[in-house]
Amino acid sequence: MSLTESSPVEAARIASESSRQLATLSGSSRNEALDLMYAALTKHKDLILEANARDIKAATKAAENGDLSLSILKRLDLARPGKYEDMLKGILDVRDLADPVGKVSLATLLDDDLLLQRVACPIGVLLIIFEARPEVIVNIAALSIKSGNAAILKGGKESTESFVTISNVIAEAIAKSQVPNASIQLVKTRDAILPLLAQDKYIDLVIPRGSNDLVRHVKDNTKIPVLGHADGICSIYLHSDADQSMATKVIIDSKTGYPAACNAVETLLVDQNALSVQLPGIAEALLAKGVTLRCDDLSKQALQDKLTAAQSALLQDATEADYDTEFLDLTLAVKTISSTPGEATVDAAIAHINTHSSKHTDVILTSSKAIADRFLAGVDSAGVYWNASTRFADGMRYGFGTEVGISTNKIHSRGPVGLEGLTIYKYIIRGNGHAAGDYFEGEGGKRWKHQKLSI
Amino acid sequence: MSLTESSPVEAARIASESSRQLATLSGSSRNEALDLMYAALTKHKDLILEANARDIKAATKAAENGDLSLSILKRLDLARPGKYEDMLKGILDVRDLADPVGKVSLATLLDDDLLLQRVACPIGVLLIIFEARPEVIVNIAALSIKSGNAAILKGGKESTESFVTISNVIAEAIAKSQVPNASIQLVKTRDAILPLLAQDKYIDLVIPRGSNDLVRHVKDNTKIPVLGHADGICSIYLHSDADQSMATKVIIDSKTGYPAACNAVETLLVDQNALSVQLPGIAEALLAKGVTLRCDDLSKQALQDKLTAAQSALLQDATEADYDTEFLDLTLAVKTISSTPGEATVDAAIAHINTHSSKHTDVILTSSKAIADRFLAGVDSAGVYWNASTRFADGMRYGFGTEVGISTNKIHSRGPVGLEGLTIYKYIIRGNGHAAGDYFEGEGGKRWKHQKLSI
Repeated sequence: MSLTESSPVEAARIASESSRQLATLSGSSRNEALDLMYAALTKHKDLILEANARDIKAATKAAENGDLSLSILKRLDLARPGKYEDMLKGILDVRDLADPVGKVSLATLLDDDLLLQRVACPIGVLLIIFEARPEVIVNIAALSIKSGNAAILKGGKESTESFVTISNVIAEAIAKSQVPNASIQLVKTRDAILPLLAQDKYIDLVIPRGSNDLVRHVKDNTKIPVLGHADGICSIYLHSDADQSMATKVIIDSKTGYPAACNAVETLLVDQNALSVQLPGIAEALLAKGVTLRCDDLSKQALQDKLTAAQSALLQDATEADYDTEFLDLTLAVKTISSTPGEATVDAAIAHINTHSSKHTDVILTSSKAIADRFLAGVDSAGVYWNASTRFADGMRYGFGTEVGISTNKIHSRGPVGLEGLTIYKYIIRGNGHAAGDYFEGEGGKRWKHQKLSI
Repeated sequence: MSLTESSPVEAARIASESSRQLATLSGSSRNEALDLMYAALTKHKDLILEANARDIKAATKAAENGDLSLSILKRLDLARPGKYEDMLKGILDVRDLADPVGKVSLATLLDDDLLLQRVACPIGVLLIIFEARPEVIVNIAALSIKSGNAAILKGGKESTESFVTISNVIAEAIAKSQVPNASIQLVKTRDAILPLLAQDKYIDLVIPRGSNDLVRHVKDNTKIPVLGHADGICSIYLHSDADQSMATKVIIDSKTGYPAACNAVETLLVDQNALSVQLPGIAEALLAKGVTLRCDDLSKQALQDKLTAAQSALLQDATEADYDTEFLDLTLAVKTISSTPGEATVDAAIAHINTHSSKHTDVILTSSKAIADRFLAGVDSAGVYWNASTRFADGMRYGFGTEVGISTNKIHSRGPVGLEGLTIYKYIIRGNGHAAGDYFEGEGGKRWKHQKLSI
């Protein structure tokens, strides 16, 4: 890993060059680099924690002056029990994942001695922009090397001392491997971001990991494809036939498991026929957990009829904007779904979600398979669940072993993105002097075999 | 198909709405719409050819005035023998392709009664901008409906009469099917393109089908992902150990099969050790086919030593710009590849290609498997071939049954794009009231099964 003091264009060009060499390395060569990284970071723990302590000291001062939030300060700290070890273990976890490069996903014998294969390969150069957490740089470097991609990294300024020290340690380790040094470059100045976002000639994918604002800023300032999500406005639709205790369990988990996560539920859509049946019990459970409910008129009325005066006093009125808001805390917008004549209620719920959700993860709670299937087909989101918590939207929970991010894009990768999302494919043909002009209908023309081979 | 006279924003919004309904239709419902389209276009052939004749009449006048090229005029003509029938047959060919929607590409039992599946689904709304050929609108409408995507179409103005009549016929046909009318919308005015390119909220993918200029204009003016390629600068690297007759055959096919195609070769890279061995015979064959050779000094010298004076007189001098040029005619740039000390010649060829090619299709001619493998791994292009013509880069030749276009993108779809490229996937979870918070290490925590199921 080199500390890039060269111009952003030059950094991108060198990364592109390195990426070509990196792409030809075997899986074992890439894994060897990860082993060396692991060993070096283990050896230099003290050095890195000293650098981290300097970041913490500066950040503490900034926090005391009110210039930095306490949550950022907390995330900076690599010395918290278990954190450094988790970071190290993450490298070995990535190393042990199946190699995403080289997988053959299509093989067709076009004709005798003319074989077409579609083979997974690295995308090329990633630009990864992330916030203060210093362990992220290790995770990203590991993911990039494992997937054979070069990466340019820009981290939050509060972690600069940690990043620089970690970078130097990683650079020293990589230098002993076959991975080219410029495969992983750290960019220190914020000024470099906009020029880097303009390097669509050299950079193939931008991955912003951080706040909505960061993601939006990146998306608004580049022509390079961006993998990620700005918002996580997830909804749960409660159908009238849902089992109440099942529904309560799923909603409580979706809202209170980790309210600041992008896969937490933000909007509860309630079938009008569930307003006075299932909703009151669910609302009671949510209020007991400290959740603020922002209700439309119908749901508020229904709840006031069933809840105690003390409970009812906690209910708030929803505004239209609440149904487009990612609260990221213990607040839930509640909206009644009434169908128009001839319309199924589930269709009205689907229409709401397709208009207001961020295409992240949406859930239906129902005991009817037919209603569920309609919802699963009709909702245009990366994740559509039946009777399960929105919080399952996560690469580790999906069994991917790691998560590069969660994408709400409509192409390439959608939902939790594993290592596979950092690859594309190339078509390889191996022939024997074959000419395309020899294949035509009629006399003298060769015929295609187009024989699918097992892979 | 409706003729959009509404605002571009409104057209895009309606398309998005329709796309949701279209996405839930079964394969047989989508195929039924294709059958109805086929029947209606068969029935109204005379009406459509009359409209086409009006386009031809106007275009002929424009061509006489020098305002339109003869090649455009020729492409306009739907009445040429077999053309209308080919267009009709294309609908049935698309209908008979395997349904790309609903295919399950991953199934994991996360836990008992908690099933995760990754299921192919339509992308949503396509914006397809193409040039004058009137049969393209039928092909695109068929591909969109088959893949469950809504489409907004903008064709070249020279075909307006044909497009409008074809649209009306298709609209009448689709109205009898379950496919929503607004799934396919035709936009008539050129003014609508820029506002449509701004509708990234509603439009998910832009597919420009036409000239480099069109593709560049689209790429420069939208944040929506663009599927396609601006240039097709394909190269062939002739290694010193290549069999001469094999090499000649592949190069002749690659250059002369259809010089205006994006998969025609534009640059021949010649190992310095092949200059006086294989190159002269290859050059003779190319010159005999009327190919103009633009040579660097070394290759020109080598050829002059071996060719007749008359042949040598035909050789032109290459400029640096020739190695970045898509000639689209019978011109071939020739460049000698000399390696620096310690560098393998094939690596110098790879470096040239990764810098100058448009990442479309590049070929190595060699009898060495080791050299070929190095080339296939090192060249970062959608297609990398060993001893086969660049002209194989084509969806029909790959056995995809159809081709949406050829992509030089680094994400989503690369190379010839079949129907699959018009789909993405969603993750579906079917549970039974599962909460993510129940899964954790330690006492009382549930354990993940993460059992891969066969698909």
